[in-house]
Amino acid sequence: MLEPALRTHFTTESVAVEEKMNGYNTRVASINGQIVALTRGGHICPYTTEKAESLIPEKIFTDHPEWVLCGEMVGPDSPYAPKETYGIESLQFFLFDIHEKKGGRPLTVAERQEVAEEYGIQSTRLFGTYPLNEAHHKIREIIQMLGASGQEGVVIKDPKMRDPPLKYTSSQSNCDDLKYAFTYYHDYARSFFYSRVMREAFQSVEWREGPAEIEKRSLQLGESILKPMIQSIKRVQSGEKLVENVKIRVKSLKTSEKFKEHLRTLGIDAVFSDPVKIKDEYLIKIQKINHRTNDKTESILRGET
Amino acid sequence: MLEPALRTHFTTESVAVEEKMNGYNTRVASINGQIVALTRGGHICPYTTEKAESLIPEKIFTDHPEWVLCGEMVGPDSPYAPKETYGIESLQFFLFDIHEKKGGRPLTVAERQEVAEEYGIQSTRLFGTYPLNEAHHKIREIIQMLGASGQEGVVIKDPKMRDPPLKYTSSQSNCDDLKYAFTYYHDYARSFFYSRVMREAFQSVEWREGPAEIEKRSLQLGESILKPMIQSIKRVQSGEKLVENVKIRVKSLKTSEKFKEHLRTLGIDAVFSDPVKIKDEYLIKIQKINHRTNDKTESILRGET
Repeated sequence: MLEPALRTHFTTESVAVEEKMNGYNTRVASINGQIVALTRGGHICPYTTEKAESLIPEKIFTDHPEWVLCGEMVGPDSPYAPKETYGIESLQFFLFDIHEKKGGRPLTVAERQEVAEEYGIQSTRLFGTYPLNEAHHKIREIIQMLGASGQEGVVIKDPKMRDPPLKYTSSQSNCDDLKYAFTYYHDYARSFFYSRVMREAFQSVEWREGPAEIEKRSLQLGESILKPMIQSIKRVQSGEKLVENVKIRVKSLKTSEKFKEHLRTLGIDAVFSDPVKIKDEYLIKIQKINHRTNDKTESILRGET
Repeated sequence: MLEPALRTHFTTESVAVEEKMNGYNTRVASINGQIVALTRGGHICPYTTEKAESLIPEKIFTDHPEWVLCGEMVGPDSPYAPKETYGIESLQFFLFDIHEKKGGRPLTVAERQEVAEEYGIQSTRLFGTYPLNEAHHKIREIIQMLGASGQEGVVIKDPKMRDPPLKYTSSQSNCDDLKYAFTYYHDYARSFFYSRVMREAFQSVEWREGPAEIEKRSLQLGESILKPMIQSIKRVQSGEKLVENVKIRVKSLKTSEKFKEHLRTLGIDAVFSDPVKIKDEYLIKIQKINHRTNDKTESILRGET
């Protein structure tokens, strides 16, 4: 529930509302003078590291070797969360937080914005700073606007960054997550499902929805669950393999090799296609295979119970 | 998937199709000359035992002390799964299987039907026995008919009871289960959800549903999830406690005391109201409290995240 959560969570008089983008979380730091990018689970990702090297000027780390830059890697050439929504050509880094390696002290929202400008780093969009007791109205407006254009949600921050940030997502984004999860239902659905549905129910109550709005929300929820499952079952039925198609764009084929090894380490089964040269880079299509859903669907279609 | 499952599962030429009723599973046996009724988890339930004593003639166990009678306890005076659907006044036992305590050898479907008639025990409804390769058509018809009247589904059996039975439920019943589970969402939803949704998706594919039917199914699914959650949140918001109201009807108040103790042993928190005398029995209302959902809802309404 947004309104009571704002009151309970923040000790400040106002909150900064920034866009929460749909990509993958990345932390970039300099280790022994080398830029490295860490993704979920704290793994160094060779692909994201190559991207970070060209997207983030080295100077920021020679000036501030103790900083960790946190941001969202967004765009179509994403091996984890490809998105066409933002009109990005390959992959872009959106800075949303800077803190110190040791102790973790964060820069304030204003300081981070200044740093981003100074070093020419893209920063996530700041919608504004609003008084705490009025913010929920404003956030609801923003969320509905973002949802309508298929975007994810907001992150609400103490401008001084002493209270931890809060995330709030659009219904559209909840449903998009569910569609993805239920396409590969036996791989992802269980862990994704519950929190998304909770958000839908509480948002509906908080927004005092009437029967027509609840019906609309129910249909969207039901379709986000059933349609991708039905489509996946039909694809397996017709002999297709369910795969997630992603792509990467690298300067060096070595990065692609290292990334292949990286996925193997993570236990992800992936087939890399031959690289296609585009200008001075290589585009490589990758098929990630979600075995659990393929196997489960095949076994049920064969008559197992 | 029904059609391939029938082929894979059964080694027989035909299958018997019986009604799967919506109550709670009960096994009745005689131990040291005393009738006892076991419910889920193999616990002896004092309430179900009292009911079994009056519903099942002792003679069956003096004639066949080695038998275990399996059946569904159905009706409104049910502490586990109260249902008004069947027009039963209090609680009725529907026999669906007889097997031997030792070794577990089952009677055939025909033998069980004869025994039920001989001893005057109610048996679950037998729709018919159908050739294996045509049964799925017939079962689909039965399922749709049952679903339309809010009933649960069928159990498909090898008439000789050598292959284990298969269960197949109506979409209506899946959605009813979800409605129940999402009313007490933080107690039950996670474990209920996934299998029910899988059944919906595979049934839709097997029945070759078009866009309009998928939309209808999606809406029903979405509403079965969201509406009960929204209602529960609103009830907690208005200061109510979420409780499950059930009732029992006993001949002896001792049974009620023993049953209270039984629920305590099972970890179920329940408030028993004062008994109301009806003819020679006592009706006792019971409120079962689903703490996890109450606590979770209250905490989110307070602003916890």
